[in-house]
Amino acid sequence: MIEHLIAHISKFCTIDPEKMNMLESFFEHRTYRKKELLLSEGDRGYEKFFIVKGCVHIFYLRQNGIEQTVDFAIENWWASDFMAFQHGSAAQFSIRAVEKTEVLSISAERQRELLKEIPELNAYFHLVFQKAYAASQMRFRFLYEFSKEELYRHFTQHFPDFMQRVPQYLMASFLGFTPEYLSEIRKKYLS
Amino acid sequence: MIEHLIAHISKFCTIDPEKMNMLESFFEHRTYRKKELLLSEGDRGYEKFFIVKGCVHIFYLRQNGIEQTVDFAIENWWASDFMAFQHGSAAQFSIRAVEKTEVLSISAERQRELLKEIPELNAYFHLVFQKAYAASQMRFRFLYEFSKEELYRHFTQHFPDFMQRVPQYLMASFLGFTPEYLSEIRKKYLS
Repeated sequence: MIEHLIAHISKFCTIDPEKMNMLESFFEHRTYRKKELLLSEGDRGYEKFFIVKGCVHIFYLRQNGIEQTVDFAIENWWASDFMAFQHGSAAQFSIRAVEKTEVLSISAERQRELLKEIPELNAYFHLVFQKAYAASQMRFRFLYEFSKEELYRHFTQHFPDFMQRVPQYLMASFLGFTPEYLSEIRKKYLS
Repeated sequence: MIEHLIAHISKFCTIDPEKMNMLESFFEHRTYRKKELLLSEGDRGYEKFFIVKGCVHIFYLRQNGIEQTVDFAIENWWASDFMAFQHGSAAQFSIRAVEKTEVLSISAERQRELLKEIPELNAYFHLVFQKAYAASQMRFRFLYEFSKEELYRHFTQHFPDFMQRVPQYLMASFLGFTPEYLSEIRKKYLS
């Protein structure tokens, strides 16, 4: 399992292979069944998850009791409530497996120890978070720029495989649609 | 000027003061007049800016020719088009000084050299971007959770000083309001 993470790190920076061998002992390898929770709103678990295989959605509970999906993460992404992870505050998001999902998880405390042992990993996380933040900047732009229907078209064109993997009701939630509206525009573009 | 950046870095990590002394030679100190551009959409400048004093807005040009503000940055924030910065692609955002603004700027190339000299700075950037990404996660939550009027109230309550500094037409653009609508709800909450 750890080889997936090592391969991902190697895309961003070069780290002595001997040091990379230490990596495994810092992570827990876990498998979640479809719909199983990795993190619950209110938790003080402070873990982050590297998705080796599978897909998760990040959501919170609206005041009306409905789950609002705000993001997804698939292979080679890191998922967490990063505010809680960084500050040790209670999680304001939950994370759930959309399909059977294998992750490498690390707690905030173990990460501090890891970064003491292999400080070079900061270069990796610097680039990973810069990239994630850059993707957020673009997503904000899309939210201003596109109508809901255009947003759907954008996702379908740019992430066709991803759109196949995610149940329609979650995609509808993420796009801010009712499931009925999503179903309508799907029909429109399929016909 | 560099002492502002050194103070900010010191909040996140500890770096040998001798190394910190090298920092200054990697940055350019610039002052922008109110409304002056730091970055233009389409540029291939690949710089990022540490705001020492002042405030900038990040925006793009809508197809109808109207500037859409997607974010602001004030003292102790880094501003850039981070996708362009990371990948060397053309900027998809512009950045303009909202008021007279002093920055420390560094190009992507100089940053690579800097990180070779002081790799410990990766720990700083790791935490800075994790924090920025965490703030984005919360902002997405707010966008789903709040009506436009609630969004305005949220900003007024949490960032009162900031709301004072930014011209109303930019705040309206950022919140996705017409200036008229912003003016209306301002009156409502002032009365």
